[in-house]
Amino acid sequence: MPRSVSRRSFTSGAAAAALATPVALSTTGATVTASNDKPQPQPLGEIKRITMYAEAMPDGQLGYGLEPGRPSIPGPLLEMYEGDSMIIKLVNNLDVEASLHPHGVDYDIGNDGTPMTNSAVPPGGSREYVWHSHTPGTRRDGTIQPGSAGYWHYHDHAVGTPHGTGGVRRGLYGGLIVRRRGDKLPDKQFVIVFNDSTINNLTGHGPDFTATLGDRCEVLMITHGELYHTFHMHGHRWADNRTGMLTGVDDPTPIIDNKICGPGDSFGFQFIAGELVGSGRWMYHCHVQSHADMGMAGLLVVTNPNGTVAGEHNAEAMKPTRDAPAHGNH
Amino acid sequence: MPRSVSRRSFTSGAAAAALATPVALSTTGATVTASNDKPQPQPLGEIKRITMYAEAMPDGQLGYGLEPGRPSIPGPLLEMYEGDSMIIKLVNNLDVEASLHPHGVDYDIGNDGTPMTNSAVPPGGSREYVWHSHTPGTRRDGTIQPGSAGYWHYHDHAVGTPHGTGGVRRGLYGGLIVRRRGDKLPDKQFVIVFNDSTINNLTGHGPDFTATLGDRCEVLMITHGELYHTFHMHGHRWADNRTGMLTGVDDPTPIIDNKICGPGDSFGFQFIAGELVGSGRWMYHCHVQSHADMGMAGLLVVTNPNGTVAGEHNAEAMKPTRDAPAHGNH
Amino acid sequence: MPRSVSRRSFTSGAAAAALATPVALSTTGATVTASNDKPQPQPLGEIKRITMYAEAMPDGQLGYGLEPGRPSIPGPLLEMYEGDSMIIKLVNNLDVEASLHPHGVDYDIGNDGTPMTNSAVPPGGSREYVWHSHTPGTRRDGTIQPGSAGYWHYHDHAVGTPHGTGGVRRGLYGGLIVRRRGDKLPDKQFVIVFNDSTINNLTGHGPDFTATLGDRCEVLMITHGELYHTFHMHGHRWADNRTGMLTGVDDPTPIIDNKICGPGDSFGFQFIAGELVGSGRWMYHCHVQSHADMGMAGLLVVTNPNGTVAGEHNAEAMKPTRDAPAHGNH
Repeated sequence: MPRSVSRRSFTSGAAAAALATPVALSTTGATVTASNDKPQPQPLGEIKRITMYAEAMPDGQLGYGLEPGRPSIPGPLLEMYEGDSMIIKLVNNLDVEASLHPHGVDYDIGNDGTPMTNSAVPPGGSREYVWHSHTPGTRRDGTIQPGSAGYWHYHDHAVGTPHGTGGVRRGLYGGLIVRRRGDKLPDKQFVIVFNDSTINNLTGHGPDFTATLGDRCEVLMITHGELYHTFHMHGHRWADNRTGMLTGVDDPTPIIDNKICGPGDSFGFQFIAGELVGSGRWMYHCHVQSHADMGMAGLLVVTNPNGTVAGEHNAEAMKPTRDAPAHGNH
Repeated sequence: MPRSVSRRSFTSGAAAAALATPVALSTTGATVTASNDKPQPQPLGEIKRITMYAEAMPDGQLGYGLEPGRPSIPGPLLEMYEGDSMIIKLVNNLDVEASLHPHGVDYDIGNDGTPMTNSAVPPGGSREYVWHSHTPGTRRDGTIQPGSAGYWHYHDHAVGTPHGTGGVRRGLYGGLIVRRRGDKLPDKQFVIVFNDSTINNLTGHGPDFTATLGDRCEVLMITHGELYHTFHMHGHRWADNRTGMLTGVDDPTPIIDNKICGPGDSFGFQFIAGELVGSGRWMYHCHVQSHADMGMAGLLVVTNPNGTVAGEHNAEAMKPTRDAPAHGNH
Repeated sequence: MPRSVSRRSFTSGAAAAALATPVALSTTGATVTASNDKPQPQPLGEIKRITMYAEAMPDGQLGYGLEPGRPSIPGPLLEMYEGDSMIIKLVNNLDVEASLHPHGVDYDIGNDGTPMTNSAVPPGGSREYVWHSHTPGTRRDGTIQPGSAGYWHYHDHAVGTPHGTGGVRRGLYGGLIVRRRGDKLPDKQFVIVFNDSTINNLTGHGPDFTATLGDRCEVLMITHGELYHTFHMHGHRWADNRTGMLTGVDDPTPIIDNKICGPGDSFGFQFIAGELVGSGRWMYHCHVQSHADMGMAGLLVVTNPNGTVAGEHNAEAMKPTRDAPAHGNH
């Protein structure tokens, strides 16, 4: 049930948000978001205004959306350049208190999005959250003030418990990317969230992603819930640093294709689809054996320019061979 | 029961140790140590001599202290400059064998602090442990010999099992920082130990720390026990490298606010209290949802210069909503 | 039951493979491989051809070997220089489908080694797997294409489940090192695999490794199975980057002696045996307390040039004090 939301919809402020043009709509339940459009650079220091809706979805799931009636899991991928601010009106269409708590960006304590600071939104209510970001610089004492650039995320911090345990479990999370001016922009973007024994709250199989040979792809990988995981991609690798890309040939950053992660962690990287390995249905999966066997696995389908895909595909072998525990039932 | 030990007490050798001036004494039971004093630079290559006491505490807990009758959890924060040595007389006032095993520093095998090397201390006995540190250099073959600088720790390796499982569980651990000459010194220091489902052996809530807006704060984060955790701070971030600080604006080290960690791991960083976000009661917590819900969360209270604190505080929402398992009962 | 396979046996292609000269043969069951020989540089862009056999071992374990009837756990340590290719004929002497899936290197989708791509080997069958590697370079768009250098590994992806859960559990895994021209070569190599609650599939104790004071030792550390672990070495440390070595005195890479890892992860480093700490029986172990207590611990025995070893050794304290769960019984 993949559903893609155009990045353009949330990087151009409120007006564009109203014009959001979802692509690749699914008929089976709107629980996966993968935005494949090319990011649009924004002028420095822009203030973006969007409205987000926290809403119920089928089967007890919850999602954030840019329009009423269109929640998704993950929620919309939000993006900023260092120096930008974002003002997000959260409309809480749930029957319980909900909130928006971001990682990585700057906000004053009144925008923490937690019951501990009385900054959640009552059922049926709404409020604005203000997030800022900043470019790097040097402090008076000579130390470096890092910029906000990073592969971050946001999530509810109120549903179920004051830490948002129920909200996160049921789908109230999304990606947040802060870029540095000059950072390379991707052709395709994939948001992958390992949430307990699901990927993007899908049980038994992960979302599949598509790219054409040579596309510059970006993965934003987020973890939530109770469990630790190890994210693995077949045939592709990345640098374990801020951008996922080396700064030079002699950069000693490890190149990896497998990374341990736990709840609240996020990282991202870019890679060239099929570089040196070609077209194919390349698996990504959690490398914890029982998790893979339960279906925490999906495909990166790299097509040739003519639309063909190399290699054979045994769909039967992708089916879960082990039962997932009841979701969140730890 | 927070109890703070002046850093001065253990960075100035045996004489000062005897003069240790605990500050911010708590009336409720000595299980948390946070030393907030400014570190005092030491001449290169100093030999520090201190005496540490392993002692029983209320409720079956155990602690190290610099004076008899004053154990704390964590034990005293020990600090050295690269090149310094430390000679620690451990007086074992417990009724079982106990020891001192450090991470990061240099010691010969007779100072390993393990039953495997017959270097633990019998009940009622004492012995000296000798730890060295060294500055970085270049080996004859051109490779770099790293210096000892790092955010390290020490712990018992004998109580309960030859790996010190009981000693660590009950509180026999502490922080150890080795600095490089020229490393920036902090205004405040916070030692945070995720030990099973406790923070600093506190069940149901973590210690709160205080700083004034603009203070340079240092966190030494240590993990012990059975469980993995993810350390998260609200409103503040750090660089995932040796110092927690970037070496320049273009340093590709990831900036993070959430990090997975497991037993024996330690890391540290410095941050400016409230930088770009202001005063407030900023939560830090384990981001594993059930751990946060059990109360693995505390506050960094950043006050304005006039003593006020921005934002609202809902103490009720900080209370555990989920029972912690019996401590160490895995 | 340590058994060492000369690196020479698999770095010199098929001819040498036939001449493989196992050293330090064990009489008790061939379940541990540690190759201690000096690596032999290879010309750039070499194509190595070897044959590997997947075979049953005593007690239900499985292993890869370079000759029929000589499987080991871990399998042979495979090494390449960036730019080399490796053509591996896998002879499956098991009665179930088995495969070879590598991390880190380049292969087309038909060499993925998974049932999902129909690239596993039926019982009694054989096939060739082709792996390539490449040097780093700069792409047309100015971004860096990382080289293949890294501490990688290979494993079965078919036995038991389509993710190879049974194969990996029973021993079908091994190390794979891709070096960059100019990378420092070690005197000794140790492959350490934390696989569920075993080390190299040994339950209750890990393999012991030996080196002479001053030897340049290389550790390749791999994790498999279900559990997360923390790898710790006593008295020795490493840099947490691609090579485990700093690029200069001011390199901000953290120096660590303890690292969290999960299934599919691998890392490596070099260290000088006994540097600044001397001869001794230095423990390495998983720092998760119950894992250490179950016997996930072994020794790095650093001997003096005259063959003596400093310090005392209490073998009794190395015995497990806690039962390991039935292997793989999670």
